[in-house]
Amino acid sequence: MALSEFDLIARYFAPLGQNGRGVSLGIGDDCAILDVPPGQQLLVSIDTLVEGVHFLPGTAADNLAYRVAGACLSDLAAMGAEPAWITLALTLPEAEELWLKSFSGALAEILDPWNICLVGGDTTRGKQLTISLQVHGWAPKGKALTRNGAQSGDLIYVSGTLGDSAAGLDQLQQKGDNQYLIDRFYRPTPRIETGLAIRSFASAAIDISDGLLADLGHILERSQVGAVVDPAKLPLSAALKSYPAEQTLDWALRGGEDFELAFTVPPQQQQAFESALKDHLVPCTQVGQITKDGGLQLQQPDGSLTACTKDGYRHF
Amino acid sequence: MALSEFDLIARYFAPLGQNGRGVSLGIGDDCAILDVPPGQQLLVSIDTLVEGVHFLPGTAADNLAYRVAGACLSDLAAMGAEPAWITLALTLPEAEELWLKSFSGALAEILDPWNICLVGGDTTRGKQLTISLQVHGWAPKGKALTRNGAQSGDLIYVSGTLGDSAAGLDQLQQKGDNQYLIDRFYRPTPRIETGLAIRSFASAAIDISDGLLADLGHILERSQVGAVVDPAKLPLSAALKSYPAEQTLDWALRGGEDFELAFTVPPQQQQAFESALKDHLVPCTQVGQITKDGGLQLQQPDGSLTACTKDGYRHF
Repeated sequence: MALSEFDLIARYFAPLGQNGRGVSLGIGDDCAILDVPPGQQLLVSIDTLVEGVHFLPGTAADNLAYRVAGACLSDLAAMGAEPAWITLALTLPEAEELWLKSFSGALAEILDPWNICLVGGDTTRGKQLTISLQVHGWAPKGKALTRNGAQSGDLIYVSGTLGDSAAGLDQLQQKGDNQYLIDRFYRPTPRIETGLAIRSFASAAIDISDGLLADLGHILERSQVGAVVDPAKLPLSAALKSYPAEQTLDWALRGGEDFELAFTVPPQQQQAFESALKDHLVPCTQVGQITKDGGLQLQQPDGSLTACTKDGYRHF
Repeated sequence: MALSEFDLIARYFAPLGQNGRGVSLGIGDDCAILDVPPGQQLLVSIDTLVEGVHFLPGTAADNLAYRVAGACLSDLAAMGAEPAWITLALTLPEAEELWLKSFSGALAEILDPWNICLVGGDTTRGKQLTISLQVHGWAPKGKALTRNGAQSGDLIYVSGTLGDSAAGLDQLQQKGDNQYLIDRFYRPTPRIETGLAIRSFASAAIDISDGLLADLGHILERSQVGAVVDPAKLPLSAALKSYPAEQTLDWALRGGEDFELAFTVPPQQQQAFESALKDHLVPCTQVGQITKDGGLQLQQPDGSLTACTKDGYRHF
């Protein structure tokens, strides 16, 4: 006898509800009962991805799981929080076993290394594949990173390399075969370790979902400061450099969804920060400096500064 | 100049983010930062409602807000938890100002009396109106009510009256004008006060979303017990009694979405429970008793018992 849709969902999602930390009662009652460790604050964020709006129709289920979970966990990374639990609201045109198996299997691959536990969800029928994922984590009281702490003189850093995700999307659209770039688009790595590593040093942080300029702009707005970014310092992957320089620069500045971190470090912390991060696996590169005002400016090769618009992607 | 969709959402949802308890940082960063009070456990639940699946297309925005929030907060009520925060993932075909104003205004009406605060959300564009709401609350450690504590001999109670929501839907479908019943369908009252009031006495609890028999069935399954329900004892509203007796009985037993509580009280607690609840504004009525086994049985007028199926609504 074929399994019911209800049983299919139970079969494929129940394993994601095992082995959680602080889970007094998991899936199966009206609510989950959870324990935030003493001295820690709870951090939560919810994101929705809609087929045809936020991802290409027909995106493979495993890539989709990586993309959704990567984007959501990146919000915890940006705050320097340790991930603990997720809830998943999944609206599906149909409950297809192979899809559920692939999606939930990939989700488990992402969650397992962090002991992140699925503690609740709702699976519903709808015309358009829609995925809302809420992430929950914690950070010691008063230690979470926010967007509003940058001060004039702070150094601006970014993690990893920029522009790869936009190039990956271009590869898909042009039927290219650069798997590294395509993976950077489909399978962004939430920089959780990096968020934890920089927490003691950074004055402000954000994840790059809308492009460096747009997201740095959020820090400037909330911190009421300006910034100068030196395009020559932007970290670029070898794969990205196969594109023309002008194109790579545009993607590195304005391409969205790299899910790297952009953060600021006070100059008096620079030495301790760079020393603490010297064995960190993800490179952090200084790309500019916070200014008292002046908005967002780009440093030109001749040393002059030009104001720039912070074009990014608008979700709506 | 017309407001952008982004500004519309900020305008109408930002007010719901004020005055929260335990909100260290609300809407506007990558995550909210929240404090669960010492000694309390965090309770969370997420539900999705899809237009045309869970509610009638064209449902007025204010009714929809009441319905979604009522259903979700009911999950906290069923666990005896105090509500604190919500997050809202809203997928809309278009951001229409009147709709947003009406929806957010009604949501504020529900949240304000409880000082419940909107701490995060995501608003996206999609073909089909889809609303995922996550509720967050707390209860003293070890005191939350669950489905698995019912024991043989415990008395079964329900809050309020049963069957009204199914009758309200019938009114809508038959173009009836009984506003009480229609409101019971559109604007269910989450029994938060009742959940808090019964917390010290109840051995198990659930909210009635799929019908008394179906939801009591969940308690029986999780507690590994049986039950006898006396249909003659089911609390019915005066409005419901305008329907034929056979119809009212079916709705009271199997009609979904009353969002009343069904709960069990050990017999040795009965006196203290009824004394403590004597001034409680929502009547709680004993409708049956937990048995060692035998599944779910209905008591007939002649005193005999008949096994019954626990038909309820399947969401999928």
